[in-house]
Amino acid sequence: MNEFLLKQLNDVTQKVNLTINQIFTQENTPKELYNASRHLMEAGGKRLRPFLVLKSCEIVGGEIEVALPIAVAIEFIHNFTLIHDDIIDNDDKRRKVQTVHVLWGIPIAITAGDMLFAKAYEVVLYNIDCKKVTSKRLLKILDEITKATILVCEGQALDILYEHKQDVSEKEYFNMIGKKTSALLQLAVKSGAIIGGGRRSQIKKLDKFAYYAGLVFQIMDDVLGLTGDEKVLGKPIGSDIQKGKRTLITIHALAHANNNQRKRILSGLGNKKASLREIEEIKQIFRSLKSIDYAITKAKMLQKRAINHLLSFPPTPTREALLKICEYFIMREY
Amino acid sequence: MNEFLLKQLNDVTQKVNLTINQIFTQENTPKELYNASRHLMEAGGKRLRPFLVLKSCEIVGGEIEVALPIAVAIEFIHNFTLIHDDIIDNDDKRRKVQTVHVLWGIPIAITAGDMLFAKAYEVVLYNIDCKKVTSKRLLKILDEITKATILVCEGQALDILYEHKQDVSEKEYFNMIGKKTSALLQLAVKSGAIIGGGRRSQIKKLDKFAYYAGLVFQIMDDVLGLTGDEKVLGKPIGSDIQKGKRTLITIHALAHANNNQRKRILSGLGNKKASLREIEEIKQIFRSLKSIDYAITKAKMLQKRAINHLLSFPPTPTREALLKICEYFIMREY
Repeated sequence: MNEFLLKQLNDVTQKVNLTINQIFTQENTPKELYNASRHLMEAGGKRLRPFLVLKSCEIVGGEIEVALPIAVAIEFIHNFTLIHDDIIDNDDKRRKVQTVHVLWGIPIAITAGDMLFAKAYEVVLYNIDCKKVTSKRLLKILDEITKATILVCEGQALDILYEHKQDVSEKEYFNMIGKKTSALLQLAVKSGAIIGGGRRSQIKKLDKFAYYAGLVFQIMDDVLGLTGDEKVLGKPIGSDIQKGKRTLITIHALAHANNNQRKRILSGLGNKKASLREIEEIKQIFRSLKSIDYAITKAKMLQKRAINHLLSFPPTPTREALLKICEYFIMREY
Repeated sequence: MNEFLLKQLNDVTQKVNLTINQIFTQENTPKELYNASRHLMEAGGKRLRPFLVLKSCEIVGGEIEVALPIAVAIEFIHNFTLIHDDIIDNDDKRRKVQTVHVLWGIPIAITAGDMLFAKAYEVVLYNIDCKKVTSKRLLKILDEITKATILVCEGQALDILYEHKQDVSEKEYFNMIGKKTSALLQLAVKSGAIIGGGRRSQIKKLDKFAYYAGLVFQIMDDVLGLTGDEKVLGKPIGSDIQKGKRTLITIHALAHANNNQRKRILSGLGNKKASLREIEEIKQIFRSLKSIDYAITKAKMLQKRAINHLLSFPPTPTREALLKICEYFIMREY
C-alpha cells in the first residue's frame, strides 16, 4: 500500500479504535456477548468505512472530530453484517481469526450481531456533540443509516437467493453488489459530508464516487477470492465456488462457456463437496475464457468513473487520500 | 378474555395491521426477504406492545394516531427478536405456523430479522407527523428504542448462557427476564407516553407498571410452556425443559429438591433427547415441590405491584384497559 495512504489509514484506525474502546468497557455484561460483538473489530479490519466518513467530512470543510461517532457507528454496522454473514456462509475464518459463531456458538453470534446494530444507533445518539450538530441534521443521518442498512439486507438476501438461481445476469449482479457493498460506502461518504456541512452537489458527487468505488471493491473481492494468497487473505481460496456465489467472473464464464465447460462449472458451483482439484479445473476454465481479466478490466473502468466524480473537488491532500483509497481497491491483496 | 379488553385489542390490531400493510407493499423486492420479514406478524400475535403504546399515549392525553408509527415500530422489533429467537432455540412452530427459518432457511431468516429491525427505525423516521412531534422528542424516542433493544439483546444472551449454567439464582432470573421481556414493554409505554406529551412522573409510573407487568408475562409464559394446552398455545409443551431454559419454576424446584429429585431434573434439563415420559416425570416433581404454584403466586404478587403504579391515574376507560391487560397476563391461555 502507498505510504501516504497507509499513514492516513493508520491515523483513522487509531482514532476509531480509541472511540471503540471507550464504548466497550470492562463493566459491560454479559461479558460473552460484548466480547463476541467486538471480536472481529479487534481482530483487525482496514477501517475503510470510517476512513471514508472522516475524509468526506474533511473534503467539504467539516471538523473530523464531530464525525467520529458516525465513523464508529458505520464500522459497527459493517461488523454486525460480517458476524451474520459468517453464520450464513458457514465461514470459519475471517481476518485470520476464527469467526464469532465458531468461538461463541450461533445463538450468541446472532445476538452479538443484533446488539452491534443497536449500538450503531447508540453511538450516534449519545456521542454526537449536540452543540455542533442540529437535531435535524442528526435525524437526517439516522435516516441515511437506516435506509442503507435496509439496502444491505436486500443485497444480502439477493446474494443468498442467487446461489440457487441458474442464470444470474450482469444487471442482477450489479444490482446485488450495489446494495450489498456500495450502499454502506455511500452511507459513509454521505453521512460524513452531511455532518461536515457539505452542499447538496458535493454530497451527490461523493455518493456517486462511493457507489462506483463499492462496485470496484466487490468485483476485486471476488477476484481475490479466486486468485489471492490464502495466507494473506486470511480465508480459504475458491470457497465462493463451493458456496455457489455469483460473481462477475462466474457470470461471464457461464455466458461464454461451451457446453462441456458450462457443465463442469455448474457441477462445482454450489457443491460444498467440490474438491480442490475440481475448483482448480474451474479456475482454469475461467482463465481460458478470460473471465478473470474481464472482471479486472470492468473494475478498472468503474474505478475511472469513481475517480471522475472526485476530480471536481480542489486538489487537496484529502482528495488525494480518497483517490488513493480507490486506487488501492484494485491493487489490494486482502 | 374479557369482552371489553377484546374489543380494545381488536381495535388496536386493526389500526396496526393497516399501517403494516401500507409499509409492506407488493413492490418490495426481493419478495422472499419481505415475505419472510412479515410472516410471523401475518400469522397473528396479540399486538400487546402496540396496545401498550397507544393506551399509554392516550392515558397522558395524547392523540393515538400520532403514536401509531411507534406502535408499529415496536411490533417490528418484537417480531425481529422472535425470528432470531426461533433460530436460536431451534423452534419449528410459533403462532400455530412454521417458523421463518423452517420456511425460508436460516440465511434468509437471519437477514429478515435484521431488516425488520432496520424497518423499525424507518417507520419512526418516515411516518411520524413532523408537524405534531418535535425533532427533540423524536430523538428521545429513537434513543429509548435503541436502549431497549440493547437490553433485549443482553437478556437474550443471558437466557442462552444460563442454559449451560448449573445454578441460576432468582435474582439472576429476574435480571434476565427484566431485560429479555420487560424492556420492550417498558419501551412501549414510555414511548407512547413521551409522544403523547406525558409528564416525567407519569412516564415513570407507566415504566414501573410495564416493568412488573413484563415479569408477570414472562413467569406466566414459563408456566404455560409447562402446563398449557399444546393446541391452544401453538407450540410444544415441555420444550423449555429439553432446551435447558431456566425458569422460576426450575429454579425453585432445584432449590427445594432432594438429591434424587435434583438428579432427575438435571438429567432432563437441557437434554434434547429427553422423552415425553421423562418430561412428565419432571413436571410431576415440579408439582410435588409446589414450584408451579410458587411461580403463579409470585406472578400474582408482581401483578399487584404493576397495578398499584397505575392506580394514581384517574379512573378512565383507558386506565381500565391497561388494568385489564395486566390481569389478562395471569389468565391467558396462549
